[in-house]
Amino acid sequence: MAELKSRRVILKDYVEGYPTEDHMELLPAADVDEAAAAEEGSVLVKNLCLSCDPYMRPKMARPQEQWYTEAYVPGTTITGFGVAQVVRSSLPGLAAGDLVSGVTGWEDYSVIKPPFAGQLTKIRPEDGLPLSYYTGVLGMPGFTAYVGFHRICAPKAGETVFVSAASGAVGQLVGQFARLMGCYVVGSAGSKEKVDLLINKFGFHDAFNYKEEGGDLAGALKKRFPDGIDVYFENVGGKMLEAVLANMKVHGRIAVCGLISQYNLAAGEKGAEELRARNLVYLISKRIRMQGFVEPDHKHLYPEYRAWVVPHIKDGKVVYVEDVVEGLDAAPGALIGLFHGRNVGKQVVRLANPQ
Amino acid sequence: MAELKSRRVILKDYVEGYPTEDHMELLPAADVDEAAAAEEGSVLVKNLCLSCDPYMRPKMARPQEQWYTEAYVPGTTITGFGVAQVVRSSLPGLAAGDLVSGVTGWEDYSVIKPPFAGQLTKIRPEDGLPLSYYTGVLGMPGFTAYVGFHRICAPKAGETVFVSAASGAVGQLVGQFARLMGCYVVGSAGSKEKVDLLINKFGFHDAFNYKEEGGDLAGALKKRFPDGIDVYFENVGGKMLEAVLANMKVHGRIAVCGLISQYNLAAGEKGAEELRARNLVYLISKRIRMQGFVEPDHKHLYPEYRAWVVPHIKDGKVVYVEDVVEGLDAAPGALIGLFHGRNVGKQVVRLANPQ
Repeated sequence: MAELKSRRVILKDYVEGYPTEDHMELLPAADVDEAAAAEEGSVLVKNLCLSCDPYMRPKMARPQEQWYTEAYVPGTTITGFGVAQVVRSSLPGLAAGDLVSGVTGWEDYSVIKPPFAGQLTKIRPEDGLPLSYYTGVLGMPGFTAYVGFHRICAPKAGETVFVSAASGAVGQLVGQFARLMGCYVVGSAGSKEKVDLLINKFGFHDAFNYKEEGGDLAGALKKRFPDGIDVYFENVGGKMLEAVLANMKVHGRIAVCGLISQYNLAAGEKGAEELRARNLVYLISKRIRMQGFVEPDHKHLYPEYRAWVVPHIKDGKVVYVEDVVEGLDAAPGALIGLFHGRNVGKQVVRLANPQ
Repeated sequence: MAELKSRRVILKDYVEGYPTEDHMELLPAADVDEAAAAEEGSVLVKNLCLSCDPYMRPKMARPQEQWYTEAYVPGTTITGFGVAQVVRSSLPGLAAGDLVSGVTGWEDYSVIKPPFAGQLTKIRPEDGLPLSYYTGVLGMPGFTAYVGFHRICAPKAGETVFVSAASGAVGQLVGQFARLMGCYVVGSAGSKEKVDLLINKFGFHDAFNYKEEGGDLAGALKKRFPDGIDVYFENVGGKMLEAVLANMKVHGRIAVCGLISQYNLAAGEKGAEELRARNLVYLISKRIRMQGFVEPDHKHLYPEYRAWVVPHIKDGKVVYVEDVVEGLDAAPGALIGLFHGRNVGKQVVRLANPQ
């Protein structure tokens, strides 16, 4: 047990525009601070699986009071959701060997201190599901899809639903949840491969590649929703939002989950095409409700979600596609790839198998 | 009674950019079509008072499916809210001499046909209030303020409220309603005179001239709301919305009533500064609900509003400032003035006194 060594990925400097490999650095293995791990209420874990999520991009920017969680600090280890195995625990209820999910570090081993240690969730092996699912369908993205769709969108059977970034960690589930509820659901994505996945794997009724509509996103939507959109699950913002507003039905609802097209704009960058908001006038004429949300506000509903979704996964009614890369050295590139749409499905980094 | 003659104001051509006097024309007096007035269910009225409202601007544009009521047709009479006196009626319940409010034409006399004739509302002389109030505090703008503030904003006593275009037909009432409810309320307007009115006449706790903040609207708001804004009553859009989003509190609410800064942008005009929507990211991080509305959706609440507001007006707890011009020939200029902020208070055109 002694002489554990851990590599770690740090943020080197604040990011403006798109993140690159130069913004992060994988530091060579160094001794794990096992004294800290022995402190009351702390847990030492071996990380098995890390999650790459779009919300991490605003955390890489110079703090602007614009995001709901604290910015990363240059020089320190990047943190995010992950799955880990307990090596040593001074926390009641967690013992060596236990599998947990929660916020961990981008490193081989993490010392998780209070209060974060107490927020780790023990994984139920009886579910028999892949560990990586705890960063996806059973983790933040899955619960985000559930809360955002079922609560914020307030959908009804028979309504029309549009999902952008629809093959991503959240979008693929929103589409399946909408279909399970009896809605007509269309998704957009950025490649033929992803569009095929939407239709053939996730059961979207229709899907399109937003890069292949000659810039006429409003027309692309009009074709698929001749009578308009009741519910939009917003993951991207910018031009897509503008086109959706023009195609919403009266009394439509928009759940604002993400605005990934905005995250990588440099400060002061006009990019007017991406940013036009003239169509906000439709909020009035169509009496649209547009509501931002984050899943931690709704965490009391997580047990309800889990009880609902696990049987659906086991029955095959909900499937989940992951894009898995291997090893900590691949983590920065995987995160960067998210913002260029390189991932197909939920982006995961696998570090190790449980023992 | 015979040989009634009526002048009328027509829209000459669709408007792009700001409307000018050239877009409208006052046609000389011509015979009123009294045969049409005699048809079953029709009402002939003499117009006493016309209303100029921002919602009329989108109706002057080439139809774009963008607005919730039909566009005006070039060559035909402009329509809008007004107060009128019945000259002849073939509608049960309305008799010559009755005073009514509702949608009428910009002309001396209007023949109002079914189904619009049936939507005229008889004025209750026992209220003893100025007739023009039926286009303002007792009409569409007043009811808009009530529904938008009390229902869409869902305010609580002690919350902080910001109102833009705060001396206008709707804004001045939102400020007073917010104060009556025990909220802290700040307004913005475009001149010193209006700012004085907000504080000294309407009882806003604070107010500022948005033209005199050196372009730093976010800073102007931060000064007045150090802990943030719970409720924003949106009348203008553009830069102001951007600044407000940066100053909202978590779980804040925005009622989108109007976006007057957007209405006069020519098609394709970038005006990027007015249109930036980057701050929509705050919708997520602050979990903001932004909801458009129009008052006709809530008309079942009008009796409740009237029963509530009339005693407040009589007690002097709610006051209403109007900007009244005289005569039909002044109507186009009054409407144009709205979009340059020339009006101080609700813009009304007085045509005649009741007989």
